[in-house]
Amino acid sequence: MIRVVVTGAAGRMGREVVKAVSRTPGMQLVGAVDPGHTGQDVGLLAGIGPLGLMVRDDLANVLRETEASVMVDFTTPHAAVANIKTALACGVRPVVGTTGIPQEEIEELKKICREKRLGGLIAPNFALGAVLMMHFAGIAARYFPDVEIIEYHHHQKLDAPSGTALQTAEIIARSRQGGPAEDRTEVEKLDGARGGNLEGVRIHSIRLPGFVAHQEVIFGGLGQTLTIRHDSTSRESFMPGVIMAIKKVLELEELVYGLDKLIFG
Amino acid sequence: MIRVVVTGAAGRMGREVVKAVSRTPGMQLVGAVDPGHTGQDVGLLAGIGPLGLMVRDDLANVLRETEASVMVDFTTPHAAVANIKTALACGVRPVVGTTGIPQEEIEELKKICREKRLGGLIAPNFALGAVLMMHFAGIAARYFPDVEIIEYHHHQKLDAPSGTALQTAEIIARSRQGGPAEDRTEVEKLDGARGGNLEGVRIHSIRLPGFVAHQEVIFGGLGQTLTIRHDSTSRESFMPGVIMAIKKVLELEELVYGLDKLIFG
Amino acid sequence: MIRVVVTGAAGRMGREVVKAVSRTPGMQLVGAVDPGHTGQDVGLLAGIGPLGLMVRDDLANVLRETEASVMVDFTTPHAAVANIKTALACGVRPVVGTTGIPQEEIEELKKICREKRLGGLIAPNFALGAVLMMHFAGIAARYFPDVEIIEYHHHQKLDAPSGTALQTAEIIARSRQGGPAEDRTEVEKLDGARGGNLEGVRIHSIRLPGFVAHQEVIFGGLGQTLTIRHDSTSRESFMPGVIMAIKKVLELEELVYGLDKLIFG
Amino acid sequence: MIRVVVTGAAGRMGREVVKAVSRTPGMQLVGAVDPGHTGQDVGLLAGIGPLGLMVRDDLANVLRETEASVMVDFTTPHAAVANIKTALACGVRPVVGTTGIPQEEIEELKKICREKRLGGLIAPNFALGAVLMMHFAGIAARYFPDVEIIEYHHHQKLDAPSGTALQTAEIIARSRQGGPAEDRTEVEKLDGARGGNLEGVRIHSIRLPGFVAHQEVIFGGLGQTLTIRHDSTSRESFMPGVIMAIKKVLELEELVYGLDKLIFG
Repeated sequence: MIRVVVTGAAGRMGREVVKAVSRTPGMQLVGAVDPGHTGQDVGLLAGIGPLGLMVRDDLANVLRETEASVMVDFTTPHAAVANIKTALACGVRPVVGTTGIPQEEIEELKKICREKRLGGLIAPNFALGAVLMMHFAGIAARYFPDVEIIEYHHHQKLDAPSGTALQTAEIIARSRQGGPAEDRTEVEKLDGARGGNLEGVRIHSIRLPGFVAHQEVIFGGLGQTLTIRHDSTSRESFMPGVIMAIKKVLELEELVYGLDKLIFG
Repeated sequence: MIRVVVTGAAGRMGREVVKAVSRTPGMQLVGAVDPGHTGQDVGLLAGIGPLGLMVRDDLANVLRETEASVMVDFTTPHAAVANIKTALACGVRPVVGTTGIPQEEIEELKKICREKRLGGLIAPNFALGAVLMMHFAGIAARYFPDVEIIEYHHHQKLDAPSGTALQTAEIIARSRQGGPAEDRTEVEKLDGARGGNLEGVRIHSIRLPGFVAHQEVIFGGLGQTLTIRHDSTSRESFMPGVIMAIKKVLELEELVYGLDKLIFG
Repeated sequence: MIRVVVTGAAGRMGREVVKAVSRTPGMQLVGAVDPGHTGQDVGLLAGIGPLGLMVRDDLANVLRETEASVMVDFTTPHAAVANIKTALACGVRPVVGTTGIPQEEIEELKKICREKRLGGLIAPNFALGAVLMMHFAGIAARYFPDVEIIEYHHHQKLDAPSGTALQTAEIIARSRQGGPAEDRTEVEKLDGARGGNLEGVRIHSIRLPGFVAHQEVIFGGLGQTLTIRHDSTSRESFMPGVIMAIKKVLELEELVYGLDKLIFG
Repeated sequence: MIRVVVTGAAGRMGREVVKAVSRTPGMQLVGAVDPGHTGQDVGLLAGIGPLGLMVRDDLANVLRETEASVMVDFTTPHAAVANIKTALACGVRPVVGTTGIPQEEIEELKKICREKRLGGLIAPNFALGAVLMMHFAGIAARYFPDVEIIEYHHHQKLDAPSGTALQTAEIIARSRQGGPAEDRTEVEKLDGARGGNLEGVRIHSIRLPGFVAHQEVIFGGLGQTLTIRHDSTSRESFMPGVIMAIKKVLELEELVYGLDKLIFG
């Protein structure tokens, strides 16, 4: 039985983690930490009925008393770094989805893990499907240098392109051999019709109500196209990745960055 | 039996028309005209084996001798206008796919048809699916003001967006009630990522080898999207529209512009 | 200002209606009825904060006291019929999304509406996009007799094909001229690979976690395909249809069945 | 400069190979063999204008006189085995797309290659995109056990499902850990709606005019789907795979079966 403590337990992602861990065989939710919600039943917060487990704000004590194996953290960069350090000091392995942790902090945390021979994971994207899409795009780019990306998000997203689209384009640009595909002369009758251009990879951003988060990577070759598409319709899509990480960090002896590293080495 | 004469019979579209008419029950190919290929068997030119019908260059004689009912013309603007006038003088109904005929010529041809009470059709796009897509887009735009267009063509196409995409956007803009959908503030991290903008309709042009000619019109609403997509993979896609037009012009007493008018009135 | 009363206000659909009506300019939520939740604030139930409007169980009184113009009902067949009769007796126009009302009850309700010259609507599907998809499919089938349907739903849906797929196939079969498309000889190496067959329209049902409710109608012709696709990702997708219906029933003098009738006559 | 001889040079695939090799830098078409077309210019047969290279029927002589490095064979099983043996006897490496060669013949050819330390490739599918699709499907199946396949072909294809779909399903079934995904109870209102079932993988075959050869593999997980799609629109799609193989067999010292083995080892 893997004993799990969740930090940021009352947040949007934290509540999903509470639900996911509670219903996974072989795991037990043994502690929940969230300074703003101490004393509340974490099951009620997550909408799955009372679990008899109250939210606390003293992480170190919780980790020790519960003899936790893994801490899952979806909080803020500042809080996450402190939480990870506390966990490592207690010999507990961190699985972290908090984004925006500075690179130098990550390096320091890696060093601590190496010294203590403790496994851990920090990943900006826990959606297995998105991770696979990017991995496959990197492989396909070796054989199909001509490629464009279309990403579809709800109309309230304020930035374009999405972070995932930019990251995918970077992976493709690095993977493509012999430089980007040849540029063709064009008459662009409408400014912007051919999309944005990141290192020779065209990116098109669709914004419409009704979409959640979707991306298509289209590779073109003589007489054929190969398309890899990921559709995400809810926050639940991150949970299988989190559950897998909880299991895998137990076998690690270092801090890994990126779910893809955990999967593809 | 509808007796059909084809002009521009040795051209890429003309040969398709020869094939299509030859295999359509209720129609007979009675004449073929193409100044550059006189004396050649039109069936051999079209790749369907000898038909015993030789290409000629004297359209008026061909139309009279064969007692033709309909002339199908895919040639050049200049040749087409002359051919149509010859046909009308002989009481033969024209079905014309030649693009680029000047508006004033079309008006004059319309006048001749009205006087002679002869039906005829000039259409820039004979692909039934594309015509239906544009028709449906016009209807859907009344209920879903939020819409974007993605068009996909082979990488050797030099202009973007495609003519069909621009025409679809115009139909949507005219059909949409109460002005274009509200514009949202955006951080465009990559110039052009949000596509081109024609009267508030975003258009995205994908150019990759492996594509032929494809278009998607995506309407977004609360919790739903409605997508209309047309995929064209060969020149044959125009033939059902040509065959339909050959039948329908027999019932007309005027010159109609656009296959959509023939279909939806 | 259109004065609206919602029945089944605490149900899944009722709560969406409460939210939608509350935020629509030109409409006012004046009453909410749901026998199991009397005394509760309907805004709190709908998750949009207190509205100061309490749920009641005496529909006739609510309709009279609030001088309602329209009643929206998403309940059960039995309750719906009673609610509609009460509404009509009070001169209030019903907009009804309850499914399963017997045909003979509908006929009787139609008769009452005609006598009282009161407008009303009963519709099994309020998703505008789905209604448009079916309408377009009926038109396209006249020109493309070759067509197949693919529907995608979550893996917990117990029946296949979906009701919408069956209804779409029926519309296509009625609309298609000259009988269904010719049947080709086949070697079906795997039983069921070619899908179900409703009057010559093949239907394929995909069941996977990650899907909500999606349908694709694909028409094939020489060298081209035309695809109409509807994606529904949340119950909200029904609300624009409900709001449209609330406005349109005010202009009606009879009971209409099906949102398509309201839209396309 | 890689010196290439093409057998079956006048066939549909052979002519594509002639075109592809002729326009690839670093390669030279030095011989063409096809018993039914001896004495004809192979460039004229391929539709690319005269190459001054006549088709012959004496393969052994051609291979020796031209000092060929690679022989490309798209013929029939019987002819292919003889051609490969002739090639190996002359120290020429075979690249073979002929399908249906019996397993015992392949084993014998493998033995000859090992003894002579000569590289060679026999592959039933040279479309790089299809090979990648199957490879990716095998990887994704480890993380997403729930998966269905949809394949789309022209209406004249007589068998269903396609060979590629069956092969993909087998790859998925082998790759999936812990057995196939749980089977849910269903009410199949229309027989066959849920498709064919190969070792727990559902396959749906669409047959419509307008399609060429397309396949979609859809993986479903909590709140997400991952789709891998290959669209093939012409025989040209096999050429990049053939060209790659011509280069790679020069580095091999054994006979490899399947383009995937060449790519992914």
